[in-house]
Amino acid sequence: MRTALVIGTGLIGTSAALALTARGVTVYLTDRDTEQARTAAALGAGTAQPPEAPVDLAVVAVPPARIAEVLADAQRRGTARGYLDVGSVKGVPRRELAGLGGDPRSYLGTHPMAGREQSGPLAATADLFEGRPWVLTPGAETDTEVLNLALELIALCRAVPVIMDADAHDRAVALVSHTPQLLSSLVAARLTEADETAVRLCGQGIRDVTRIAASEPRMWIDILSANPGPVADVLAAVAGDLDETVRALRALESADEAKRGAGAEGIAGVLRRGNAGRARIPGKHGQTPTAYATVAVLISDRPGELARIFADAGAAGVNIEDVRIEHATGQQAGHVQLMVEPQSVTALTEVLRGRGWAIRQS
Amino acid sequence: MRTALVIGTGLIGTSAALALTARGVTVYLTDRDTEQARTAAALGAGTAQPPEAPVDLAVVAVPPARIAEVLADAQRRGTARGYLDVGSVKGVPRRELAGLGGDPRSYLGTHPMAGREQSGPLAATADLFEGRPWVLTPGAETDTEVLNLALELIALCRAVPVIMDADAHDRAVALVSHTPQLLSSLVAARLTEADETAVRLCGQGIRDVTRIAASEPRMWIDILSANPGPVADVLAAVAGDLDETVRALRALESADEAKRGAGAEGIAGVLRRGNAGRARIPGKHGQTPTAYATVAVLISDRPGELARIFADAGAAGVNIEDVRIEHATGQQAGHVQLMVEPQSVTALTEVLRGRGWAIRQS
Repeated sequence: MRTALVIGTGLIGTSAALALTARGVTVYLTDRDTEQARTAAALGAGTAQPPEAPVDLAVVAVPPARIAEVLADAQRRGTARGYLDVGSVKGVPRRELAGLGGDPRSYLGTHPMAGREQSGPLAATADLFEGRPWVLTPGAETDTEVLNLALELIALCRAVPVIMDADAHDRAVALVSHTPQLLSSLVAARLTEADETAVRLCGQGIRDVTRIAASEPRMWIDILSANPGPVADVLAAVAGDLDETVRALRALESADEAKRGAGAEGIAGVLRRGNAGRARIPGKHGQTPTAYATVAVLISDRPGELARIFADAGAAGVNIEDVRIEHATGQQAGHVQLMVEPQSVTALTEVLRGRGWAIRQS
Repeated sequence: MRTALVIGTGLIGTSAALALTARGVTVYLTDRDTEQARTAAALGAGTAQPPEAPVDLAVVAVPPARIAEVLADAQRRGTARGYLDVGSVKGVPRRELAGLGGDPRSYLGTHPMAGREQSGPLAATADLFEGRPWVLTPGAETDTEVLNLALELIALCRAVPVIMDADAHDRAVALVSHTPQLLSSLVAARLTEADETAVRLCGQGIRDVTRIAASEPRMWIDILSANPGPVADVLAAVAGDLDETVRALRALESADEAKRGAGAEGIAGVLRRGNAGRARIPGKHGQTPTAYATVAVLISDRPGELARIFADAGAAGVNIEDVRIEHATGQQAGHVQLMVEPQSVTALTEVLRGRGWAIRQS
């Protein structure tokens, strides 16, 4: 691939353009908002001039509702050898493109599983896709040349290609992304009616469950509007499980011991299925999760405390796999939980204790 | 307070005993499993010998189902001036104690909002409660002397006392702790039926939402069995919202534009209420959350990388408020997100860039 046209210079389009430019591809940038295309060009993502000849690959990175129309228009004008989009949902643009008389052979629907809280070209970075799954949804009619152009783009962005059927992709993101978003929002929404004292009792569990409830509604309305059926199907299944859970809890209130036993069994079932589902989420580097051991260290809130602890941990030659900071309520202190391979716990603990840290070891 | 008896030397009982002993209180330890009491004593939590005279405070730290019986027995024997329990639910032990003819004046129900993944005396630490809320649920009949003994215990454990009505406490923990646990399990449970490729698409959102779905079922069955009514009430409210959400998604599938508009409005409402609820969760040190800025740094998976980055960050004199490690899928690299006060971003970024780190700045 020598030349590419990025249509839509938001976060995703500009990030891909930055990666391609960094690896020597000539990138042309266009956006309905010409100011935004000029911003992307100023960031080094390419040129805001139109290409003089057809490019190798056109990357359509516009909002979901406009994808098919932009694709069909670009195909009509013979802008590129191959066309792909990077929208979060894959069934709708494919069907809409067919409805508009677009060419299914030179089009490939894709979805890079990367993003961030911020949007727009100023939030873009060349490494946004590094190590992330990038889904490709070729059909029987897709030209192999177009598939290979897309694979080259993904390799240049240092992402990991994953091939899926378009509708299977939409069901998968309904399950692993869209449903968790809505349930996080529904749990958080319950807090709007809570009194101030109840809210003070929030711990790390509800903080984690509701973190993504802080997401920007607009983007999620667009995503969910393009995938309502599969999301509704998963939510309906959750609703069924939820109704059963409520019935099990009501049985636990019963005076009848057999009913209470059945209720406890129902709750145990929910919790065990939760254990089993959670265990399926791949760990670091796509492997199954390692059972890391935790070394918890008491820290004050002074600048440099974390710097000092990591420098001291580094002296132990231990790789810290994950970090969690547990903030104390109402006090200027907290715990840092260092997750390490179980065999590293002793070395790390000894070194940190030797350097004066208060350790709470698992 | 000079003397205390801790009945039940698991994680919570032994942690409280360690804190009291560290601050000069003479602590007696007892457990139905005498081996466990001896372990706690060996850890420096107190003595496994019985007290020769009544103690100032008896702390009942046994599983929920046994609390009332243990309290009533201790009161009958005149073991202490005041009695408290530390169970996760507060209405049940109070009512059960009354049913057993216990003395409501010398008893106070309390709940320290602290815990960890591990259980048993070996997991205990004197600082388990530092900075954490510790709920007290005095009734009109509670002796002021007993309330003051409990406040002294909480101060010695360096926790933050919060006074609540017992039933209000149970409704609050149903909302902020028990409901998020069950919904995390219900979302995770959906993954048991997913195919392998779908599971590969799991990102940070579902990881956070389902983290606590890995919790041990046994402990949660005990907790939920003691608080089924309030949890069922919150879950039923979530179920109502969920049904509305499914209806809104089905409307988004409609050919009728007005119906689709109503569906989008319904989804927007869910997401906005989620934003509002999430914003109510107190931030660090019990304050409202500060909008931290994120500086993302690319790291490899070599030992010492985190050590080096924190040492370099420390050189900037910047206080890192929170840390998140984003693991890449299928690659030996990832991003560390450093959360800092917005005004610190420039200094931190400059120092890190100057030391050769690849920065992705917000």
